[in-house]
Amino acid sequence: MMRIPFEQVQQMCKRVLESRNMSEEDALLSSRLIAETSLEGVYSHGLNRFPWMMKKIDAGTMLVDTHAQKVASFGVLERWDGMRGVGNLNAHTCMQRSIALAKEHTIGCVALKNTTHWMRPGTYGLMAAEAGCIGILWTNTMPLMPAWGAVNATVGNNPLVLAIPNRDEPVLVDMAMSLFSYGKLETYAREERDLPVPGGFDENGNLTTDAKKIMEIRRPLPIGFWKGTSLALALDLIAAALSGGATTRRIGLEEGELEASQVFITIDLSSFPDRNQIEEEIASSLAQIKDSKREDPAVPIRFPGEKRLSLRKENLELGIPVDERIWNEICSL
Amino acid sequence: MMRIPFEQVQQMCKRVLESRNMSEEDALLSSRLIAETSLEGVYSHGLNRFPWMMKKIDAGTMLVDTHAQKVASFGVLERWDGMRGVGNLNAHTCMQRSIALAKEHTIGCVALKNTTHWMRPGTYGLMAAEAGCIGILWTNTMPLMPAWGAVNATVGNNPLVLAIPNRDEPVLVDMAMSLFSYGKLETYAREERDLPVPGGFDENGNLTTDAKKIMEIRRPLPIGFWKGTSLALALDLIAAALSGGATTRRIGLEEGELEASQVFITIDLSSFPDRNQIEEEIASSLAQIKDSKREDPAVPIRFPGEKRLSLRKENLELGIPVDERIWNEICSL
Repeated sequence: MMRIPFEQVQQMCKRVLESRNMSEEDALLSSRLIAETSLEGVYSHGLNRFPWMMKKIDAGTMLVDTHAQKVASFGVLERWDGMRGVGNLNAHTCMQRSIALAKEHTIGCVALKNTTHWMRPGTYGLMAAEAGCIGILWTNTMPLMPAWGAVNATVGNNPLVLAIPNRDEPVLVDMAMSLFSYGKLETYAREERDLPVPGGFDENGNLTTDAKKIMEIRRPLPIGFWKGTSLALALDLIAAALSGGATTRRIGLEEGELEASQVFITIDLSSFPDRNQIEEEIASSLAQIKDSKREDPAVPIRFPGEKRLSLRKENLELGIPVDERIWNEICSL
Repeated sequence: MMRIPFEQVQQMCKRVLESRNMSEEDALLSSRLIAETSLEGVYSHGLNRFPWMMKKIDAGTMLVDTHAQKVASFGVLERWDGMRGVGNLNAHTCMQRSIALAKEHTIGCVALKNTTHWMRPGTYGLMAAEAGCIGILWTNTMPLMPAWGAVNATVGNNPLVLAIPNRDEPVLVDMAMSLFSYGKLETYAREERDLPVPGGFDENGNLTTDAKKIMEIRRPLPIGFWKGTSLALALDLIAAALSGGATTRRIGLEEGELEASQVFITIDLSSFPDRNQIEEEIASSLAQIKDSKREDPAVPIRFPGEKRLSLRKENLELGIPVDERIWNEICSL
């Protein structure tokens, strides 16, 4: 593990993206989102995933020369077409638009079809929270989990983000419907570490902590067992219905997750006359939770998203921890 | 276990409610919602919970003579005050209003404060789906689970409902953020049965299948462990922020869950020109899932909400299965 300064990480990603004919403006934004993801400690969905993203671009399944376009408008809800363009740029565009709708109408909703992997889901939740909005957003994915009681993957793990503005730092829930995201599973597999708790099934249907086996047969454990696959299915159907885009079923008809559907809902808290009381009550609730009686006195209770800013500060100072093999791979791209 | 005809169940509940000076119109609706919940097989949140609801009414913590009122309007989002009235009536009113907003603006959102237990969450999701709308709704609750890593309950289990219109019967996800809802835990405790999988912790911090112990110390297992409490916390903060109502923290300051906050979001699919394709794709997705390779060939794969109509039919024909002790208790109310 080595540490590389944030600027160098971003510059390297920008260089690689521009070498594939991405415009400078797009490469600047896309590389910033990727570098910031690693900067804030979500290594699995930042730089570590960049070589995979470049494979998509090189294979022509993530297009660098298209941009998301509005295709229909229904008041506060808009449908956009991602044109199979770069997933993090599309998601950034749609979240920006959703926030603009919320600033005008209290609620905004953008439903995006035909988009590619958005990398770190929480990125767009933070945009909402930093604009003073509640963010509720999710994506569908290719088939990654079996339905409950089944063995073959037909359901996405469909990450869901809930983001809430907060005085110090936003509350940020960013979670796949599998107990471990595929990004996390990849990290454990690459580092040849066991999962801390069983995270799926092996080929004999037994629970296992072996991330590689779980990914091979696509049998991660859903959160809440039967509940997680139900929730994932519902998120998938809603995303496809609102966007007029593909369901997980349709995404699975072709290799490569070419046309995901995503939903970006924002609600502007600054619309409310009691926004100051809301802010105070959020802070009080978080304080109470942090003040809980601990199971292990040495392990503090954290609210979701709490570690982000301290990791950001540490990694800005010391550089971003980067797997040397991955860094070398990126340098050679 | 005995079976009682639907009409008799509803009449009995209506009689009891009217005996507490509820208006005939309100008693008719409230009793119908309760009887239908049991009719559709959700026994834990229908008739079995009715004696508990009557205790709330008799204690004056659920008021029979108030009605939810609109207190503020922000375009497609409205805030309502439940006036500590009857929870299922308040939720019914707010879901109706949310659907009306969606029919006019594609999206509707009603945020309700100061309300009491809404009984079966799925009831209001079905209203949305039956009106051709996506329904996304949830409630907060009193503190019912510890934060992850803590031992004292500070987080609600905050049931979430996602409902999706579908040709045959709606897709209905209705889930608490604990692996088992308190209604389910109560059922297992009353019937002195072990949970099918560990559903929480005992007083020594060990996983247990003993529902009674779990309820006593309020340590149910959240779905997805650390993920479930994060999701529950976010739902709580959003519900309180949108409604201007109480968080779980504030609800916990008094005994009895006097002032829950709820959110009712609806999106009208009939707004969309491709509604027929959407309907077809939902049906195809569900068919594919049902057609999965089964883990146990004898156990069919079901989509969430699928059993509802067949149970309804069976219970309409044969009568609703009712615990004799509970029925006798209700008859004596």
